[in-house]
Amino acid sequence: MEELDQHEERIRGEVIFKGRLLCVERDTVRLPNGLTSSREVVRHPGAVGIIALMDQQVLLVRQYRYAIAQKTLEIPAGKLDPQETPVDCAVRELREETGYRGTMEHISTFYTTPGFSDEVMHLFLAQDLVWDPLAQDEDEFIEVERIPWDEAVQRAQHNDFKDAKTVLGILLVKGRMG
Amino acid sequence: MEELDQHEERIRGEVIFKGRLLCVERDTVRLPNGLTSSREVVRHPGAVGIIALMDQQVLLVRQYRYAIAQKTLEIPAGKLDPQETPVDCAVRELREETGYRGTMEHISTFYTTPGFSDEVMHLFLAQDLVWDPLAQDEDEFIEVERIPWDEAVQRAQHNDFKDAKTVLGILLVKGRMG
Repeated sequence: MEELDQHEERIRGEVIFKGRLLCVERDTVRLPNGLTSSREVVRHPGAVGIIALMDQQVLLVRQYRYAIAQKTLEIPAGKLDPQETPVDCAVRELREETGYRGTMEHISTFYTTPGFSDEVMHLFLAQDLVWDPLAQDEDEFIEVERIPWDEAVQRAQHNDFKDAKTVLGILLVKGRMG
Repeated sequence: MEELDQHEERIRGEVIFKGRLLCVERDTVRLPNGLTSSREVVRHPGAVGIIALMDQQVLLVRQYRYAIAQKTLEIPAGKLDPQETPVDCAVRELREETGYRGTMEHISTFYTTPGFSDEVMHLFLAQDLVWDPLAQDEDEFIEVERIPWDEAVQRAQHNDFKDAKTVLGILLVKGRMG
């Protein structure tokens, strides 16, 4: 079977916004049928999320999410610093947000929203946790909660967490446990 | 236990960009400790994704994703039109992208990236599919693939899809099947 040509060629583009976190671009592209269209893209530095297990419990963080104007209970997570590797970022974020350092095992990498952003998220499983805190970011206010692992799996399965990476991470780790 | 005040109060804000798809805002907020910080938010109309099952296969779509400059194999998905309900959007998108109409059962609603966007995604399970196509969007070029359900579950579990909603949707439906 001949593969359908789906490539979109960039004709021109402009950076609309370069902020502290995000960069927004609007490009004009040539479509496979020869017509042109516009594409709006949010450039993101990438992020990590950590499923941190301890005594058959998982460490979650409760925080206010300004973008959605509500508190959420999520797995610890954060953005990559410049030149930082995903595993180093995972170690740092877990220490900052929960106070614990753990062994890190990579379990998944995926795009969060390929329809409009290049954000890539790397998920890690953290175990063998020891207390070794780092200071939190000065504009983050985070509470740590531990919940039993079996309860977390049930809650993930029943639409009781609000964000994709938390549900996805818990279900992936559950699947690996068999 | 007294609950930690984590609320961030909007002091002022500006719309940086209002595009065809996205709206980007930058707000100045007062933090719980009295200091101020900035928050960059991508406003999104919301979206749906559909796990469409047929003869123990799942319908997936292959398309070029400009934001990540590569093709992906994803569950059918799309943005809400103004005033459109999630279930109506799911029926429409499945018809546009695969040609099939199905019964729709809501299985999950979550935020894709609460750290910087308010995009909410509604996932539906579609069954009892009948051929009833709608024209595709004129700037979308989509190929439909059917893969066996058991293979899709294995691929979701082994990091073989590239986007969050596809992995999440398949693992959630698998969990419901027991």
